[in-house]
Formats: sequence, C-alpha cells, structure tokens
Amino acid sequence: MSTAKYSLPCLIAELPQYIDQRVVTAGWIHTVRRLGGVQFLVLRDGSGLIQVVQRDQALRLHPETVVSVVARVVRETRAPGGIELHEADITVLAEADSPLPIDLSASYAKAALPTRLTAAPILLRHPEAVKWLRMTDQLVAGFRHTLHGLGFVEIHTPKILGTATESGSNVFEVEYFGRKAYLAQSPQLYKQMMAGVLGRVFEVGPVFRAEPHDTARHLSQYTSLDVEVAFISDHRTVMGLVREVIAGMVDWAREKTPNTQDFWPEILPAIPIIHFAEALDLVSNGLGENFRAEPDLAPAHEAWLGQWAKNQYGSDFLFVEGYPTAKRPFYTHPDPSRPQYTRSFDLLFRGQELVTGGQRLHQYRNYVEALQKRGMSTEGLEGYLMAFQYGMPPHGGFALGLERLVARLMGFSNIREATIFPRDLKRLTP
Amino acid sequence: MSTAKYSLPCLIAELPQYIDQRVVTAGWIHTVRRLGGVQFLVLRDGSGLIQVVQRDQALRLHPETVVSVVARVVRETRAPGGIELHEADITVLAEADSPLPIDLSASYAKAALPTRLTAAPILLRHPEAVKWLRMTDQLVAGFRHTLHGLGFVEIHTPKILGTATESGSNVFEVEYFGRKAYLAQSPQLYKQMMAGVLGRVFEVGPVFRAEPHDTARHLSQYTSLDVEVAFISDHRTVMGLVREVIAGMVDWAREKTPNTQDFWPEILPAIPIIHFAEALDLVSNGLGENFRAEPDLAPAHEAWLGQWAKNQYGSDFLFVEGYPTAKRPFYTHPDPSRPQYTRSFDLLFRGQELVTGGQRLHQYRNYVEALQKRGMSTEGLEGYLMAFQYGMPPHGGFALGLERLVARLMGFSNIREATIFPRDLKRLTP
Repeated sequence: MSTAKYSLPCLIAELPQYIDQRVVTAGWIHTVRRLGGVQFLVLRDGSGLIQVVQRDQALRLHPETVVSVVARVVRETRAPGGIELHEADITVLAEADSPLPIDLSASYAKAALPTRLTAAPILLRHPEAVKWLRMTDQLVAGFRHTLHGLGFVEIHTPKILGTATESGSNVFEVEYFGRKAYLAQSPQLYKQMMAGVLGRVFEVGPVFRAEPHDTARHLSQYTSLDVEVAFISDHRTVMGLVREVIAGMVDWAREKTPNTQDFWPEILPAIPIIHFAEALDLVSNGLGENFRAEPDLAPAHEAWLGQWAKNQYGSDFLFVEGYPTAKRPFYTHPDPSRPQYTRSFDLLFRGQELVTGGQRLHQYRNYVEALQKRGMSTEGLEGYLMAFQYGMPPHGGFALGLERLVARLMGFSNIREATIFPRDLKRLTP
Repeated sequence: MSTAKYSLPCLIAELPQYIDQRVVTAGWIHTVRRLGGVQFLVLRDGSGLIQVVQRDQALRLHPETVVSVVARVVRETRAPGGIELHEADITVLAEADSPLPIDLSASYAKAALPTRLTAAPILLRHPEAVKWLRMTDQLVAGFRHTLHGLGFVEIHTPKILGTATESGSNVFEVEYFGRKAYLAQSPQLYKQMMAGVLGRVFEVGPVFRAEPHDTARHLSQYTSLDVEVAFISDHRTVMGLVREVIAGMVDWAREKTPNTQDFWPEILPAIPIIHFAEALDLVSNGLGENFRAEPDLAPAHEAWLGQWAKNQYGSDFLFVEGYPTAKRPFYTHPDPSRPQYTRSFDLLFRGQELVTGGQRLHQYRNYVEALQKRGMSTEGLEGYLMAFQYGMPPHGGFALGLERLVARLMGFSNIREATIFPRDLKRLTP
C-alpha cells in the first residue's frame, strides 16, 4: 500500500533548536548583499528571518526568489535572533521577476495606500505585515481560548438572509434562485436564538455592510467577533465579560506574537464607565458643542472622550453605557428606570468605538411591541420570534470588529491597512 | 467609578464540583413529572441535564419555562450523572407558550425534516442536537489546535469577489454599489496567495454554492475548513497533512465532547491510497459499469469504494488520487509522468467525499498556459497571478466540509441535519 507522509522543511522560527546541526529550511530571498566573494542573504519564511552566509556557490539571487537551503545552524551573537546559517547549499525552487511591484526592503508604509493595496499579494510578505497577520491570528485564538474556558460554544450562522430586517439600510442584495436575498450585516438574530439553545455562544465570521461612504474606518466586509450570553443580570454582566475577553485576547496574543511588545494596552481591572448623558455633557463642555438637535457621539466626540479617559483614569478603554433608545435597534433592552435610554453600551478603545453591546429584550410580547412601535413587520422573523415565545432567558452580548482592533493596536490610521484584501465602495480586487 | 462584573449562574456541567453545597444554577425545564406531592424536574442548560427534586414549592411548570434555581447539590447514584439538586428554590425568569411547536422529550428525529428545520430555534435545544452542536465546535477547535501546533496561521479572506473566475457556474450574484459581484465559492485563490506570504495558512469560513439541485448532500452555504501549505514535495505531502489534521480533530473532539464515544472512527496510521484509474477499474468490476464515456466517480461509486476500503483494509477512510485533468480546476498540478491525470486527491469517509485537495501549479507561465488552454481570461486575476510572478513555492492544500463531516459522524442521512439554519434552493429562513 502506498503512503503519504507529512514532512516539510524546518521553519526559520524552529532553527534555534538545531544549533550546530545541518538542517533543511526554505523560504524567500528577502535581501542580498555581496561583500568580497561572500553573499550575505537574508532568508524569509512566514515565521521569521535569518541570515545565510554563502561562500562557494556561484548562484546570483534576486529578492523573492524561492529557495530551499541545506545549511548548518551556528550561533552568531551579532546576528538578529542570535543565529545564522553557514555552509549553505541552495536550490532555487522558483524564480521571481524583477523589479518587484513594491519594494519589500523599504519601510512598510512607504508607498501610497492604493499602490500598497493593489500590490497586496506581494506587500503582505513584508515583515511588518507578517507581524499584524500573526497578531490577528493570535488575537482571535485568544478570543476563542478565553470563551471556551468560560463554557462558550462556537457557532456558524447563515450569511444569506431572506429579509433585511435588522436595519434595512446598507444591505447587499443577492440574487437567490430567482428571489431577492440579503447578506448578513451581523449574526445578531442567530446568536440570540443560539443563546436560547446553548446559553453561551460566540462566532467569528464575515459581516457585510453596503457602506456607501469612503472612510478610513469602514469596510464592506469585516470580521466580527460576536458573543451572546444567557442568564445575565443586565448589560453590566456583558460589560464585565467584554473586559475578561479583551484581557484574555491581549494576554494570549502578547505571549504568542514575537516583537509586538510595544503595541499592547494596559487593561485596568475595572474599565471606567460613564453614562451616555454624562458623556454628552462632558463633550459639550469640552468641545463647546450643543447636542440638543442630535444626541449622538460622532467620531470626533469619541476621540475627545478617549483622551479624557486617558487623562482621568489612565485608561485606553472607556465604556459609554445607556445609549438613547432611538439610536439602538429594536431588540435593545430599555433602561427600566429611564426608558428613553437603553441597557446598551459601546467600548471606546483609544478614542474609537471598538465594541457595541447590551442586554436584549427577552419577552415575546416586548418584541411584538418594539417592532410595532418602529413600524416594522414580523414577516420573515417568525423563526426568531419563536425563540422568545417558547422560553428565552435574559440575555445580552456584544460584537467586536477585528480589523478595527488590529488597526488601533498597530497604530494604522486606515482600517484597510489591517485587512488582507479589503472590500470597499471602489475595491473588489485583488 | 461604576464597575461591571462578569458573574453568571453555575453551568450544570460544573455542578459536580459543588457536592453538598448550595448553588445558583439556571436553565430550561426540560421535563416535569409529579409523584405524590413531589415534582421531579429535569433542568437543562447548554452544558447538560440535571434532575431537580422539589417538595415544598407550589409552582406549576411547563416544559421550556426558563428558571433560576437555588439548590443543594447531592450525590445520587441512581441519577444520570450521579448528582441531583435538592431543596430547590425556583424562580421563573421567562414563561414558555404551550404546546411547543415540536416535542423536545420525543426522540430527536421523530418529526419530518421540513417540520424540524422550521422549528429549528426550538428543536436545537434537544439534547441530541446539543450533542452535535458541541461536537462541531470541538472538531473545529481540534482543527485549529492541530494546525497552530504545526506552525499554521489562520486568515480571513474576502467573500465578495469581482469575478466569478474559479468555476463560473453555480455562483451567487451580488449587487455591489451598482456593479455585479459574486459570493466566494471557496477561499482557494486567497489561500494560495497567502501560502505565498505565510507559508502555512488555514481558514474556517462560509462558502457559497448556488446549487440548483435539491440533494441530501448539498447546501447553498456551508462551513469550509481550508488549508494551504508551501514547500511540499507533491500532493502526497498534503495527503499526509490531511491525515494528521483529521486525527488531531477526532482526538481533540473525542476528549472534549461527552457522550459521543460511539461516533468516532478509527484512523489508521496510513490511510489507504488508490489511483483514480485503479478506482474506476475496481468499481467497473464491482458494479459492472462502463466508464469509457464519462470517467468520473458518482456518489454510488464512492459508496462502493468506501465499502471496499472497509472490507479490504478495515478503514473508514480512503484516498483516491490522480483525478483526470479535465475534472479538476485550472490551478491543479498535472502528474508529470501521466499528464492526463493530476496531483490531486479526494478523501472518502464512509463512502462519501469529505476532503478535496492536491498540489497546485506554482509557476507563472504554467498559469498563463493553463488559463489559455481552458479559454479563460486573466481579467480580474491580476493580483492572483502577481503572486506567481514574484516567487511562489511549490504548494498545495485541501478543503473539508464541516457539516458533511458532522453528518457522517452522527449518522445523519441529510447534511441539513448537521446545519443549524440550512440554506438551500427553497429555504432562506429561519
């Protein structure tokens, strides 16, 4: 019988385990420098970089040539990472055209953003890009690790919906076997139904917003980290969970992602909380704005509040709770003591909204009322409403935008810089 | 400063830690039985079931009523799980209408499938459904755990594409800001580009197929577990990885999912492999069919081969390698010794295709040739082709359908039974 064996060259990150041994590794030629008869190559793979010293072989190598390298791992204190490859025997596996569409030895953000996005398949090979790609992976791993540890179950919900109920605006239309359907703007209704099944659920998946504005904070598709939890007291239980989860993500990713020490925020044991009404007062005093016409927090206001929280509490994070009913979706639980406000919240991170959440309605009759009051039909919501008709616990949840978090952590001013192949008003490729 | 604390009732699965203590737990009334003046309630949450013995309280409870329970955990060897709740103080958190749209105390598959799918928000609360929901979660966790351990990085790729290049048929059309766009049928082109960046990548995400047939094996949306790996020797390296990953998933999920012992297959250290041509010979001998007109394996043939592998090798799994070039997409690497065949494979599990994979082309000129030969345009593929132009290692990968795996493991005959809210030709709700 034939067999199939999984065996690959060593990753560069694994080489410190093989000091003084001859190993097989492979990757891309990142840079080439010649000094006398010696070539100093920097080899790159997805896990790191290493210098290869090559004396005897006459190979002339361009950047991005793909090679396999058999060489001895030697300690070299002057080399980054403390090791080098000597006595290298190099085989070319694939050639690279030259010049490259973008210079990978230059600083990461040198070219203009549109150029960088078009050249993404090559630009993402830049070590700075690999850093946020790996950081993204480990943040999500930390999200899952934390939630699994707390008894949550991961779910996968439909992204094609029969009705555009949740908001109705900014929805992409899909041609579905001769019918109209819509791309999900969030897993909201599904995670609620599943909180009615499993109690504690989460999902990591794409959500779609037909965002007609070309801003630095919005994408047509982004990755939403969604959580829903049953048997809460009120939205404060959810806010406590948000803090646990973000702390879990940061702790995990900090440990697992090398060379990112500078990026991590401190997360206070209790993240400061202010009420929406109080936030408006603070901002109107601070910025001299009058909010009577449109009581809402614009990006500039969030930025101001972020700075305020930093000065006041030394915190990168600030909860704003109690958003007005008119500004929140139909499923939002009102604040019983002040029904014009809700049991909802946003979490600002470094002055930008990162998380939105709150307690949801859980009584069937309250849903019927809330939909009526907003002039919304129950059509297409039969399944969703069924969950509340047959026993739904008090519950709530939150959603965190992954690319937005990574962009803020990395200090990118545009969310597209933290998205491998962004989709927006103009961009559908690569 | 206000604070938010994350504190929830105990999960039923956690109660064995609290023998002889009084705890707060919560859930749904699963069943009610009265015997003399005593109510025997079975309480259910997403983590399990427990019997509650209630003597003094006059509460009359329907199935699916949501309750909070303060009670003492006692050892009771006759109870399932070895514990019960006594001296229960019960508070109703939410009422449930009665009768239920589907009977949760009946056997899981009692009602007809359409009825069950329409009542999914309630039916999924059935303990048998919770079993496969949790199994699904842990299979995916095992997938990630195994791949992270092997140095793979998780990615999140675009689901809206500018061109329907990969196959052209069975694609959903999206109205994208006045342009036509398409839902991704797979992350294929993106995972290849990212293998050119990170070397070892994977993705877990929705894929969309406008499948115009109403079969028991197809959905319009399913969850694809995708892997792509660089620096392989050939497709056999990928097949070796498939075995590692599936064994990792099964080991992990078996350990983490209670009451599923019966479902797990044995995975031989080397999964048997046969060539496509040999498979055709076997099937034509076995079933007396003539494959000269259409050399392909239909579901009935796969079922026959599954049985053959079971008899011949005692294996639930069988690799078929070397599918004909005409049957595989343009990026498939040909078999250099027999160019009418490819370095591709399917993995059959219990007689059904579970995994598809293979080695891909990695030279730019081979892509240009392959597209030309098939009469395909390079338009919209500029970014993809850029990756090959500037140094792409030999690489390959595979895709595994999650719902299909779970359905096979659970012994469901229809893939919809392993999908929380399936989408098909007719179904867009709930």
